[in-house]
Amino acid sequence: MDHGIDLGAVLLAFASALVGAKLFGSLAERVGQPAVLGELLAGVILGPSVLGLVPLSGGIFLLAEIGVILLLFEVGLETDLEELLRVGGPALAVAVTGMALPFGGGFAVARLLGYGPLTSVFVGAALTATSIGITARVLSELGVLKTREGQIILGAAVIDDVLGLVVLAIVSAVAEKGELSAAGALRTGVFSTLFLVVALGAGIPLGRWLVNLVGASRVRGILVASAVAFALLVAWGARKAESAPIVGAFAAGLALARTNRRHDIDHAVKPIVDIFAPVFFVYVGAEVDVRLLNPAVAANRPALLLGIELTVVGLLGKFLAGFAAWGKVRRAFIGAGMVPRGEVGLIFASMGLATKALPEGVFVAVLVAVFATTFVTPPLLKLLRPSAA
Amino acid sequence: MDHGIDLGAVLLAFASALVGAKLFGSLAERVGQPAVLGELLAGVILGPSVLGLVPLSGGIFLLAEIGVILLLFEVGLETDLEELLRVGGPALAVAVTGMALPFGGGFAVARLLGYGPLTSVFVGAALTATSIGITARVLSELGVLKTREGQIILGAAVIDDVLGLVVLAIVSAVAEKGELSAAGALRTGVFSTLFLVVALGAGIPLGRWLVNLVGASRVRGILVASAVAFALLVAWGARKAESAPIVGAFAAGLALARTNRRHDIDHAVKPIVDIFAPVFFVYVGAEVDVRLLNPAVAANRPALLLGIELTVVGLLGKFLAGFAAWGKVRRAFIGAGMVPRGEVGLIFASMGLATKALPEGVFVAVLVAVFATTFVTPPLLKLLRPSAA
Repeated sequence: MDHGIDLGAVLLAFASALVGAKLFGSLAERVGQPAVLGELLAGVILGPSVLGLVPLSGGIFLLAEIGVILLLFEVGLETDLEELLRVGGPALAVAVTGMALPFGGGFAVARLLGYGPLTSVFVGAALTATSIGITARVLSELGVLKTREGQIILGAAVIDDVLGLVVLAIVSAVAEKGELSAAGALRTGVFSTLFLVVALGAGIPLGRWLVNLVGASRVRGILVASAVAFALLVAWGARKAESAPIVGAFAAGLALARTNRRHDIDHAVKPIVDIFAPVFFVYVGAEVDVRLLNPAVAANRPALLLGIELTVVGLLGKFLAGFAAWGKVRRAFIGAGMVPRGEVGLIFASMGLATKALPEGVFVAVLVAVFATTFVTPPLLKLLRPSAA
Repeated sequence: MDHGIDLGAVLLAFASALVGAKLFGSLAERVGQPAVLGELLAGVILGPSVLGLVPLSGGIFLLAEIGVILLLFEVGLETDLEELLRVGGPALAVAVTGMALPFGGGFAVARLLGYGPLTSVFVGAALTATSIGITARVLSELGVLKTREGQIILGAAVIDDVLGLVVLAIVSAVAEKGELSAAGALRTGVFSTLFLVVALGAGIPLGRWLVNLVGASRVRGILVASAVAFALLVAWGARKAESAPIVGAFAAGLALARTNRRHDIDHAVKPIVDIFAPVFFVYVGAEVDVRLLNPAVAANRPALLLGIELTVVGLLGKFLAGFAAWGKVRRAFIGAGMVPRGEVGLIFASMGLATKALPEGVFVAVLVAVFATTFVTPPLLKLLRPSAA
């Protein structure tokens, strides 16, 4: 009856993740840090390399993914599409600069250290994609999602996600066939951009129709069930269109934000996000293998050193990209908001390791940079937040 | 990165389950039936034997289990422990009678048809356990959870679940070693009863302590996250104590119902249940293989006939057990509430098939009885509900 899922283990891990997330989240807040930093740290401690209470199993992975999908759906619900489009120019500039600088920096560092062009391309690529989940969560916690800075960061992170998938298509083609495929990259770019346009173009009238349809029904929970089903379907469609599920869920939220039941849906989705989003942040933390970070072990040192260099490049690249924005905005805050890398960086690194484009030591260094940029962002954003908030 | 979970497939199945459940639930209500009947039917249609949109995969299984665990947690939250204990006598009488009659009936039918004692024991055992999930959901939908009848049914279903596990321990020992193990049965009985006592005895002060502890915190979602973590931990503990996770979740709900944040927790848990419980009912429906139910196929007929006989025995046995209750109550309604079989019946049947105690044809007949009793209950309860409700 278990179909490969150990229900008991998942229940214990799910409960541990919630307890750990809220305990460390509270502690983080008590020392003036965003709660999400505590949730990430809880994941490190609960994960396989320390306590082993939260394994990186299929069941927990699924709950984590549902968590981040619903989180982005909620963020979409709370975002005004028109305001987002109004900052489209600066967001695009920030996104493009924020991909070019870390890519160039990462590539240059790897080349200077004597690595081949293929390895260097992977190192650069892994530093390009901003983690929209971490960023959205911190912005929401700081209450700055709706500021101009928050909107630019959010818009840039979405564009960044789309561009990141284009880079992924290029790099994976390079790794598999050893050659650059402009056609594949173009295809992914066109597909995932088209998807966003279609999802919003069709999603807005569809969402209104759906809300009207179920509005009359008195079946329990039909509004929230329909809204979540809508989000899951658009997330699934995004994946099919070679885009990311979280981008789809965000688009679904933007669409339903334009219905007259926006607040009812948001209100009902919040507790679901409260339960599942922490699993995502704990899962990200659990992926950190602390044994590789011990500088007392001589074998770890080269990777750690390279990791620190890549962290500096990754941090500076995104931070400086914030200054590509224009208007009366706090550019340093925008740059800081683009710093965290997440899932997409890990996918690049895993793919590089699997195709042998990244030697083991470089793989670990990339992981260090991905996690260091993730962990440094919450306090950095808190430090730099606009006084208006 | 997928750990054996096909995220795209789960997203599509999850969304389909929600859309199907709400669509068929609305249709069921429109023809005067409880919504859960529509959700079960939606599962049959979405399941592998018809449309194949909801597979019986590990991911969907996990979401379904979380759904039924949180559903029982919610039912526990809305139940008054003292009122439940007040109907303890009649509930125990209903539970014991409701296990003895279907067991005896099923055993006798199988023996009369010439099956051996081992096969007959499995047939009888598979008809014993009431599905607490289906029953609780229908009672809640009809608004009769808090009537005396509702309390007796709920209490009897919980006792039934504990007794069902004892029977499971006996039967599995018989199947494995070919002999009756009184020690094993006693152990399971003592363990799972002790667990309930300890879960409530320790759970009530622990729940109060927890609610006070997090009451002061302003971390977002900490109350609902702590409450759900508590429910998951008790559900996990129940499994460890050889009881069922849903019994643990129900006990956790009973414990938190005695805190001063009962209504806040209930309010936040509702939308989570709205999203996940339908997955459970759709999953149960999806387990029905309609191809085996076609009477036009001659090979299906013997199993169908035996299935109908077992359905009648299973239905009458539980229905008559309702008359073991005393006091000023509607006994026919109580009997009807005990009729649905669910997960536990399926576990018996699967175990019987795996250990070859049940021939394929008898296995199918048992499945027919399990599903028929499940599908017949919602309309039956609606028909017989006390006029007070």
